[in-house]
Amino acid sequence: MRCCRIIVNSTVSSPSGRLVVLPQQPVDRNILGRAIMAHIEELAAISESRTGLTRVFLSDEHRRTNAVVAAWMEAAGMNSRIDAVGNIIGRYEGMVPGAPALMLGSHLDTVRDAGKYDGMLGVVTAIACVAALHRAGKRMPFAIEVIGFGDEEGVRFGATMLGSKAAAGCFTADLLALQDSDGRSMADGLRAFGLDPDQVGMAARSRGELLAYVELHIEQGPVLEARGVPVGCVSAIVGASRLGVTVTGMAGHAGTVPMAARADALVAAAQAVLAVEQRCLSEPGVVGTVGTMTVAPGAINVIPGSARFSVDIRSVEDRQRRQAVDDLRARFAEIAKARGVGIDNTVLHELPSVSCASWLQDQIRAAIVAEDITPLDLASGAGHDGMAMVAIVDIGMIFLRCAGGISHHPAEAITAEDAAIGARVLSRFIENFVPEAAHP
Amino acid sequence: MRCCRIIVNSTVSSPSGRLVVLPQQPVDRNILGRAIMAHIEELAAISESRTGLTRVFLSDEHRRTNAVVAAWMEAAGMNSRIDAVGNIIGRYEGMVPGAPALMLGSHLDTVRDAGKYDGMLGVVTAIACVAALHRAGKRMPFAIEVIGFGDEEGVRFGATMLGSKAAAGCFTADLLALQDSDGRSMADGLRAFGLDPDQVGMAARSRGELLAYVELHIEQGPVLEARGVPVGCVSAIVGASRLGVTVTGMAGHAGTVPMAARADALVAAAQAVLAVEQRCLSEPGVVGTVGTMTVAPGAINVIPGSARFSVDIRSVEDRQRRQAVDDLRARFAEIAKARGVGIDNTVLHELPSVSCASWLQDQIRAAIVAEDITPLDLASGAGHDGMAMVAIVDIGMIFLRCAGGISHHPAEAITAEDAAIGARVLSRFIENFVPEAAHP
Repeated sequence: MRCCRIIVNSTVSSPSGRLVVLPQQPVDRNILGRAIMAHIEELAAISESRTGLTRVFLSDEHRRTNAVVAAWMEAAGMNSRIDAVGNIIGRYEGMVPGAPALMLGSHLDTVRDAGKYDGMLGVVTAIACVAALHRAGKRMPFAIEVIGFGDEEGVRFGATMLGSKAAAGCFTADLLALQDSDGRSMADGLRAFGLDPDQVGMAARSRGELLAYVELHIEQGPVLEARGVPVGCVSAIVGASRLGVTVTGMAGHAGTVPMAARADALVAAAQAVLAVEQRCLSEPGVVGTVGTMTVAPGAINVIPGSARFSVDIRSVEDRQRRQAVDDLRARFAEIAKARGVGIDNTVLHELPSVSCASWLQDQIRAAIVAEDITPLDLASGAGHDGMAMVAIVDIGMIFLRCAGGISHHPAEAITAEDAAIGARVLSRFIENFVPEAAHP
Repeated sequence: MRCCRIIVNSTVSSPSGRLVVLPQQPVDRNILGRAIMAHIEELAAISESRTGLTRVFLSDEHRRTNAVVAAWMEAAGMNSRIDAVGNIIGRYEGMVPGAPALMLGSHLDTVRDAGKYDGMLGVVTAIACVAALHRAGKRMPFAIEVIGFGDEEGVRFGATMLGSKAAAGCFTADLLALQDSDGRSMADGLRAFGLDPDQVGMAARSRGELLAYVELHIEQGPVLEARGVPVGCVSAIVGASRLGVTVTGMAGHAGTVPMAARADALVAAAQAVLAVEQRCLSEPGVVGTVGTMTVAPGAINVIPGSARFSVDIRSVEDRQRRQAVDDLRARFAEIAKARGVGIDNTVLHELPSVSCASWLQDQIRAAIVAEDITPLDLASGAGHDGMAMVAIVDIGMIFLRCAGGISHHPAEAITAEDAAIGARVLSRFIENFVPEAAHP
């Protein structure tokens, strides 16, 4: 990433010995936290369901959310626009108009019956940081763009990160044919949203336009809470393998087939579920989950003839993840042989791990340290838009502590104090940001 | 059971030393088997589904089936009637009109996507046996009734053996409020069938009317096939306990929650499934099945927060079954404690084991031996109408070999040769039948 050199206006020595810039006007902690939480509540009210929060790509709720966010962006001194795939983008020009941009943001869609911080917090916090610069009448030597991606969760069309894939130029035309549960294609969805499916390519950003993509997001896990720190620096986003597994046994009458004569698909599947847990418990850094399980014929008095389940394996180390998948497939084959059932598995999805750029990690860590917080590096076990953006720009992430590690659930929670800390860390990061080429 | 003494017309000494009566006109083996198979095919064509066989209580298909069966009964010299709950009954008077009856039969309803022998074979075979008597112009010292119960499987209203419960006087008024999946009550179903729900009690038979209830049924298990014998004598129908089990863990993100910090409901359920198998494998005579399993939220990338499954435990020995249930509940509690999840279980259903009357078993065994078949006693792992009928009359059952022990499945199969053997055994049994009071 190349860029013009930054002109700093006041510098001090950070604990890591690097020069950092302090915000000229420290933000009032309470006001900032409360403002962020108020914006979060406003977005959380835009839902397709009367109770709870569900907001999917290219929906009416998506349109309304973009309008609300655009108004906040404009109030924060940004020019806003909706790109060719429905992402909302605000641009705060630097000292010289048209300069390459530090891109901040996250996504504005949700899972079904979602929490209200996942995604939204990163957009709202980034706008709050730019608003503070705007209020101070301050311009940076680089532009700042805040982006609210229209799709990351993939709820509507089954494919994830559609917004960031388009921004990164990785959106392929075949995605347009994907259908939602009503049988409506993404192409139709884009048209109904006022966009032209043939023009989605226009959403792609070029490498030269962007200096970095940095996202603040709730951790969605329990690590920060357990360590008693409000924010952490993300080292990498884990890679994931997903398998679809089908066990084929022999259905039979629950009363008439002797135990020893059975080929019970569910019992074999149960053994496989325990094998996944056992394998992943045995090696730190690997997690494995069986999230779905269906049994056929599924009657109380019938021995299951077949069972289907999913396996999700993740690790920061791609080699470690692949080995776990190989070991499990071998273990499934052993179970199949021992039980006289068939176990077939298909790789549904495989995404390699993505590292956060070390130069961005350094600057994020410096911003955390400057807030008197012990810097903690942690991997992201969840996927994020950075996995798409990394195709065209280096990425960094800041994690914010959330209650009980709970996410994708209405109980998802953060405190206003932590929201303010996150905003201060991001503000410090922005105001001290040194693009890679200019970095010592 | 009391009755007039039987007048036999020709006797020989059976291998067991008891006097048995041979049919006066031995039935042609091929013709009889083919006739039974043809009737089976005719009934199998009466289905609510265009392909496969599904026929439920009080449906239009039930009405058409009763009409077909009534015609066969009339052709076999019986008077037919539909009772107050929709069972079809044919009566072949004995030497003295109005004498107590030996009741034969089975059920005419099916599970969804059923096989064509379960139930139907018992009705069709009994009619074939009476038809042979009728063709020979022969009357027995007792009446014979053939009953085709309208409901045994319980598919439509969730409660089983509604036909035989009504015949046995065990039909309770609260059953009328049960609803089918369309929300239609059984009372409405009876009305639509041309029956009066207030008169269901009229279907109840009195003890004095019946001498025994004897049913021929496919085994629905692999024992006869494995032992190479076409028919067997049923010693008892197993008792069954059914549990509904709910595991409550903590949902979480599949990528972000460390393995050791999880309370995965499905992993705990998988351990419980294996515990059911292990417990039942450890004790001959007990079978246990987990036939259903649902997981919530049921997403590939979410740790299951809850899981629900059923447990079906059966044994001829009620004490053994209850002990197995107690042991499993204790084991579930251990799993819950070790994994930090909740495991609640509810008894959904509990039916004690029912013995076939030894005097009927003796006469069934004699009929089998007279066909030069080694008599094999076996328990029924499936429930049958006899479990209801035993409330008013002693019961006996004859099992017929079926292919691979498969039932409740379109692949359910028997051979025409075995069908003929079943009919010959039942004919011998009828023609040599000695009511209990008259038995040596």
